[in-house]
Amino acid sequence: MNPAEILDRLSATLAARREADPSTSYVAKLFHKGQDAILKKVGEEAVETIMAAKDGDKTHLVYEVADLWFHSLVLLAHEGLSHEDVLNELARREGLSGIAEKAARNQD
Amino acid sequence: MNPAEILDRLSATLAARREADPSTSYVAKLFHKGQDAILKKVGEEAVETIMAAKDGDKTHLVYEVADLWFHSLVLLAHEGLSHEDVLNELARREGLSGIAEKAARNQD
Amino acid sequence: MNPAEILDRLSATLAARREADPSTSYVAKLFHKGQDAILKKVGEEAVETIMAAKDGDKTHLVYEVADLWFHSLVLLAHEGLSHEDVLNELARREGLSGIAEKAARNQD
Amino acid sequence: MNPAEILDRLSATLAARREADPSTSYVAKLFHKGQDAILKKVGEEAVETIMAAKDGDKTHLVYEVADLWFHSLVLLAHEGLSHEDVLNELARREGLSGIAEKAARNQD
Repeated sequence: MNPAEILDRLSATLAARREADPSTSYVAKLFHKGQDAILKKVGEEAVETIMAAKDGDKTHLVYEVADLWFHSLVLLAHEGLSHEDVLNELARREGLSGIAEKAARNQD
Repeated sequence: MNPAEILDRLSATLAARREADPSTSYVAKLFHKGQDAILKKVGEEAVETIMAAKDGDKTHLVYEVADLWFHSLVLLAHEGLSHEDVLNELARREGLSGIAEKAARNQD
Repeated sequence: MNPAEILDRLSATLAARREADPSTSYVAKLFHKGQDAILKKVGEEAVETIMAAKDGDKTHLVYEVADLWFHSLVLLAHEGLSHEDVLNELARREGLSGIAEKAARNQD
Repeated sequence: MNPAEILDRLSATLAARREADPSTSYVAKLFHKGQDAILKKVGEEAVETIMAAKDGDKTHLVYEVADLWFHSLVLLAHEGLSHEDVLNELARREGLSGIAEKAARNQD
């Protein structure tokens, strides 16, 4: 799979599992437990990301950031949002930053 | 900008700022402060994500998840890694018969 | 000062500063900013506690746990609660045949 | 039990369980798992404290702060430290703050 497509594909999978029988998958069960359970996972994975970085273990760090982003996607899907909202926000900032940088350069 | 390209572009920008003069940008300053400063930001943004979700404020939630992903990208760049490592890990899991595989591991 | 009295004294100080002019102290300013600002500090100090422990720096760890407890006390005071409520809860658990009781609940 | 004595008593209990058979209690098992497992619990309880405060549920908040302090005590015991180190640090700051306040008053 093209890495660029993985967020689209994951988001589609997550959206499809929002109403699934909790017994059919880890994610369906997590959606069923609700927002608080999802938020606890986001907190846990952030802590594990920090710990993996402190350990200097790069393979483990990639694994934990993947867990952190994955559970962020679950949270977004639970709220009727998706990675596109987040990427658009990042693009907006980058665009603004690009504009700000251009303005700064024009002041020279 | 195409949302799919924003992570590529952000990662390229971050990699370029790793060795920049700390006075030139927020990110250059954060790289200069080092790993602990970056990790504190990851922790902070995770907490703010959780709080925005509890408030039920979707615009704010998108903003905080963007901050969380952004600082994750800074952390990855600081360690010589990038979003591609994380997306490849997510693709690998999805490929391994999808999220069900993770669920199976988590039932141990 | 007797260490056993420090929580009483800190709680009394915090309660007195709840309504103080925000410009008179760090704590008065934090109360004035409100619950979200206090919660961010609790999250930050928990992350710094974890990082100090990973560093194996015991002096720093004591300092960060002190910060974590201090900001927990600020949070309790903000909600009209105090260390006594927390100590009573810990005493209740210990009294209920001790920590074994908690373990039993956690095995569900 | 006198609330003032609960921290002494808990710390003594924790110190005694550091070398106990992991099967005998929740805490003995947590010590056996080691520092990372304890740190994850500190992170989890901080997140749950934040969530309980956002919910405005004071009974739950007291419960979660008790969990947070309890797991801080487990961490301290794991590192050969105790609540006394933390209370002494808080007393030292309060003393310094007292001195600073006295100095401020004397400037009037």
